[in-house]
Amino acid sequence: MVSIKAGILGATGAVGQRFVEALSNHPWFEITALAASERSAGKTYKKAAGWRLDTAMPESVENLEVVPVDPKAVDADVVFSALPADLALKVEPEFAKAGFAVASNASSYRMEKDIPLVIPEVNPEHLGLLEVQQDARGWDGYIITNPNCSTIVMTVTLKPLMQFGLETIQVATMQAISGAGFSGVAAMAIYDNIIPYIGNEEKKMETETLKLLGEFNGSEIVPADMRVSASCNRVPVIDGHTEAIWAGMRDKPTPEEVRKAFLKFDPRLKELPSEPAKPLIVRDEIDRPQPRLDRNMGKGMSVSVGRIREGIRYIAMGHNTIRGAAGASVLNAELLHSMGKL
Amino acid sequence: MVSIKAGILGATGAVGQRFVEALSNHPWFEITALAASERSAGKTYKKAAGWRLDTAMPESVENLEVVPVDPKAVDADVVFSALPADLALKVEPEFAKAGFAVASNASSYRMEKDIPLVIPEVNPEHLGLLEVQQDARGWDGYIITNPNCSTIVMTVTLKPLMQFGLETIQVATMQAISGAGFSGVAAMAIYDNIIPYIGNEEKKMETETLKLLGEFNGSEIVPADMRVSASCNRVPVIDGHTEAIWAGMRDKPTPEEVRKAFLKFDPRLKELPSEPAKPLIVRDEIDRPQPRLDRNMGKGMSVSVGRIREGIRYIAMGHNTIRGAAGASVLNAELLHSMGKL
Amino acid sequence: MVSIKAGILGATGAVGQRFVEALSNHPWFEITALAASERSAGKTYKKAAGWRLDTAMPESVENLEVVPVDPKAVDADVVFSALPADLALKVEPEFAKAGFAVASNASSYRMEKDIPLVIPEVNPEHLGLLEVQQDARGWDGYIITNPNCSTIVMTVTLKPLMQFGLETIQVATMQAISGAGFSGVAAMAIYDNIIPYIGNEEKKMETETLKLLGEFNGSEIVPADMRVSASCNRVPVIDGHTEAIWAGMRDKPTPEEVRKAFLKFDPRLKELPSEPAKPLIVRDEIDRPQPRLDRNMGKGMSVSVGRIREGIRYIAMGHNTIRGAAGASVLNAELLHSMGKL
Amino acid sequence: MVSIKAGILGATGAVGQRFVEALSNHPWFEITALAASERSAGKTYKKAAGWRLDTAMPESVENLEVVPVDPKAVDADVVFSALPADLALKVEPEFAKAGFAVASNASSYRMEKDIPLVIPEVNPEHLGLLEVQQDARGWDGYIITNPNCSTIVMTVTLKPLMQFGLETIQVATMQAISGAGFSGVAAMAIYDNIIPYIGNEEKKMETETLKLLGEFNGSEIVPADMRVSASCNRVPVIDGHTEAIWAGMRDKPTPEEVRKAFLKFDPRLKELPSEPAKPLIVRDEIDRPQPRLDRNMGKGMSVSVGRIREGIRYIAMGHNTIRGAAGASVLNAELLHSMGKL
Repeated sequence: MVSIKAGILGATGAVGQRFVEALSNHPWFEITALAASERSAGKTYKKAAGWRLDTAMPESVENLEVVPVDPKAVDADVVFSALPADLALKVEPEFAKAGFAVASNASSYRMEKDIPLVIPEVNPEHLGLLEVQQDARGWDGYIITNPNCSTIVMTVTLKPLMQFGLETIQVATMQAISGAGFSGVAAMAIYDNIIPYIGNEEKKMETETLKLLGEFNGSEIVPADMRVSASCNRVPVIDGHTEAIWAGMRDKPTPEEVRKAFLKFDPRLKELPSEPAKPLIVRDEIDRPQPRLDRNMGKGMSVSVGRIREGIRYIAMGHNTIRGAAGASVLNAELLHSMGKL
Repeated sequence: MVSIKAGILGATGAVGQRFVEALSNHPWFEITALAASERSAGKTYKKAAGWRLDTAMPESVENLEVVPVDPKAVDADVVFSALPADLALKVEPEFAKAGFAVASNASSYRMEKDIPLVIPEVNPEHLGLLEVQQDARGWDGYIITNPNCSTIVMTVTLKPLMQFGLETIQVATMQAISGAGFSGVAAMAIYDNIIPYIGNEEKKMETETLKLLGEFNGSEIVPADMRVSASCNRVPVIDGHTEAIWAGMRDKPTPEEVRKAFLKFDPRLKELPSEPAKPLIVRDEIDRPQPRLDRNMGKGMSVSVGRIREGIRYIAMGHNTIRGAAGASVLNAELLHSMGKL
Repeated sequence: MVSIKAGILGATGAVGQRFVEALSNHPWFEITALAASERSAGKTYKKAAGWRLDTAMPESVENLEVVPVDPKAVDADVVFSALPADLALKVEPEFAKAGFAVASNASSYRMEKDIPLVIPEVNPEHLGLLEVQQDARGWDGYIITNPNCSTIVMTVTLKPLMQFGLETIQVATMQAISGAGFSGVAAMAIYDNIIPYIGNEEKKMETETLKLLGEFNGSEIVPADMRVSASCNRVPVIDGHTEAIWAGMRDKPTPEEVRKAFLKFDPRLKELPSEPAKPLIVRDEIDRPQPRLDRNMGKGMSVSVGRIREGIRYIAMGHNTIRGAAGASVLNAELLHSMGKL
Repeated sequence: MVSIKAGILGATGAVGQRFVEALSNHPWFEITALAASERSAGKTYKKAAGWRLDTAMPESVENLEVVPVDPKAVDADVVFSALPADLALKVEPEFAKAGFAVASNASSYRMEKDIPLVIPEVNPEHLGLLEVQQDARGWDGYIITNPNCSTIVMTVTLKPLMQFGLETIQVATMQAISGAGFSGVAAMAIYDNIIPYIGNEEKKMETETLKLLGEFNGSEIVPADMRVSASCNRVPVIDGHTEAIWAGMRDKPTPEEVRKAFLKFDPRLKELPSEPAKPLIVRDEIDRPQPRLDRNMGKGMSVSVGRIREGIRYIAMGHNTIRGAAGASVLNAELLHSMGKL
């Protein structure tokens, strides 16, 4: 039984609450600090959070006092950041400088040269950037980031296709409302409707994917040589991003060859607590995956794929606030610990 | 004031009711027959229909007696068919043989060589096939079809792109539940969910589009030389199909050139009653079109486009049971009448 | 063709847009001023409004410049107020003092002794209060209010029950999300959910109803002698408030007697433009009224009732932002004009 | 570790799947038979079920062969019945006669004089009827039933109010779509809508409640002397029935006295596996309970209450297919076992 002290930055929001859920019975981590905005600081978490998950708030955090988002106020070895991008931009370096490991779900530093953007099943070797980062910046701590939720769901399915010479990706997303936070989308805006626009989402998918699938040459990441074209849509689904993907590949594999590549995909991590039995679940039914039925597979950490057709076209689906956010950061931290870096 | 006697086959279903709505105050047509299954025949339309539109049932049809789907029972010049495909396959030729003009929304005969598949704004010249059809089959009447709802919405936007040398189309659809009829989708199946499969829909989009954009050489349609790859999804929206489209073109137009082509698109029909002021509405807002807000534009007959981006990518949206079904058939019949063929 | 200059206060919100819709082709009123917050003032209405109805914005208002909510900036005979209660509290008397007729949908002055709270079909005689009001306050103009949306829907059905000696009312509401404005309810809060609480709504229903059904004795309103107990819920419906009502009556009428009283209800107004053919529509089907199917009856101005059972229990339903808000205010102004008071 | 052989009748439907979920890791029961219609019999459960819960199908049942609903084909000590009422009417006595304990969720026999209708937390003493039943009918087995889902949710909250002299109950329900089975409600019927009618539901609530709260005098149940008036509505919620209740009581308790009675309610069962820590959860927040957030409390077996106001009015909410159906039957069977009757 390890016990690593964990803080959560932005602990009261939609992703913050998923962090609390993921860490409250974790075998390695113990929540020692819940940090949020000035408005919440000083209150008990129970009062401040306005808990909105459909599981009860863990009793262990109910009476923790929320602290400000300030390295001096936070007692922890690692902090998980669910901060909005503008705030993360300012605060995360302060934590890294103060010696914290920062596992961030924010977009602010994902594309920075010396900051690793990691999905454990896809590019664990990019963690090598951490030394580059600490050398360059003179930090005791560091920042590690995970990608945008839509990027994660897609990239977990692209990794096993790299062997076929992946060249072009077109992806139309159908994204859940929880991706915008608890109050990010008004009911009047999305009910019986689709919003064919999500700010910056397309650009994130188009750039983050290339970094994730790129090569670490010892000092930097050489982006993958391919093109991604995304068309992002918000749909009336609570949790779970669904993606219609076209993957153009040099070797022109058949749908069956693609299916087998998905089935064989086995990233062999080191038995990390949040690692699902199958990172990629292949559904052979004609009408799966579906977000409401499949988003909780692998405790929300599995990505499901199906409808692999000529094209190559297929559907990918994953839980956006677990696999695509809080769970992704926690898995990164677990990987770091398993490698002795935490 | 013309008065053409119009019958509706399959008058009680979702599309059938849209036919009633479209024809009940029509300047040219008068509903003289409402035909439906044996179960309904003999009842008043009010009893049989279980009216489910959010406008009141037109009083003029309330007490019409529903007749069987049989040429002998139907008194009309033109019949509009909202029959299921298997029934249409058997019944529509009987009506055509008996001298009726059959304007069909069913898929059964869309791809038949001598049967025109028409969108008035796209390929009115294909009506030339009617003579070929009557010659070949010895029918007094004829069958004219309109495409599948998803195909219509897309093809109206593809027509103005033909000038750029259209080569490849990829389309991910987000289709409304009304497309499956009143009881086609269970609430438990689609609520808070997406179903990434609609039977035969992808094949329809991939074949019908080539016929629609093909050339009539006097005796047959030479399909357009391009490839369409579709990925069709059901989403929790009541009416309005939204489509994320990638159009690969030989001339590589810029988004602005594409936008201008959409704006200039003017099919110059002959002032048909159901023709919208603009068949194609270009939305410049960053987050439009949206089904709930835009599906009723042009009384449901306009297709809206927006988010024209590099790629070329854009979003198209249209009302599936009006522009994509009942309204499409009615517009076809209006075109026939304006050309003296009805 | 009359032409009364009409201003709208709070013109950009959910009810404000319904006012624009109701007044833009009105035979008597002409929109001459659109007033909104400082943030919007100076912009064209098109820019400021973020139009969110499913009909196109009337062209006539697109380029009107939004003015501040200030009597000096507004050129109009009558102003329709869709202001939030706190702002209405301050601003409406300023307009009345400056000589405007103020037809308000805000709750601020509904329960004031000398300010009439009116539903034309229910208590037109309460307009007598206007003289009392002007005498007491020395205003050139005046304020007239309409009730809360839930109150209106219910009270239109209670009026014809007064003859039976109405004593107790219990009502459980299922209210649409549009009642809270465009961004009043987050999608994450209401999707696949019910919120069994709406701030102040129960108190409004319990007090406004007594004033509406009370008697005007020449100088004041004597509230009706009955008790109302409300339990208000928000449900995932876009428009249309549904109410399960129990009405306890001294005379113990049968369901059929109640049904006949509803059918006979005929408030005989003076052919006002917004008056529906039937203020109360009685549905005899076993499962009606339903909000999506019935909310637009009478252009959104009819209240539908059904399922009249022993108890006496029944279901009432009406469009909350038309019958229950903008349309209610407009109908009040029409009534005033027909009486020569505008 | 006990091992009681359990069969499920109607194992493929919405409630049947909840039975499988509840029993697959149960400490006392082992699923030994899955019975369903002729169409399913002979197939593996995986093929037959079309599993539609958002948890994975338990591996232990995947390859069980579905058997016909016939006592000869079923190997079990107890059978749980999720059959439709008409089929249950015929089949359940056959099973009881053949020596099975039948724990039924069907409505067919709930109101039979010698058949107990039981909620363990409410009226466990009614199990005394089993002897009466076996004596009268000469059965080796027996039938025990649980109430309708809406009745259960309400009655768990009424039991602690009996001490105040409960006289009248008015209840408006807002019921989830899962209550009608997987395909019982069409998406077009309920999306953006409310259906103010559910067949027989009101009568069930009005009669079952009196039996449940009645007294067992050694030979029969004397119904409680009170009146229940229900108004049942279907709303667009997946799981969880919400109920607005008015409880008229002789002693006129205050809301606080009612709250305390709810808090003190402690039915003291014998540590049954499915028994929640709290059968009744009192929520003091102003806007709870809510179905999406609270339905899974106590693994779906707790009923939540809140908004206790003058009237006495309050809101009750519980999971309709767990607490209100499968879980209710399983809890009944657990109670029987704990009393040595199974």
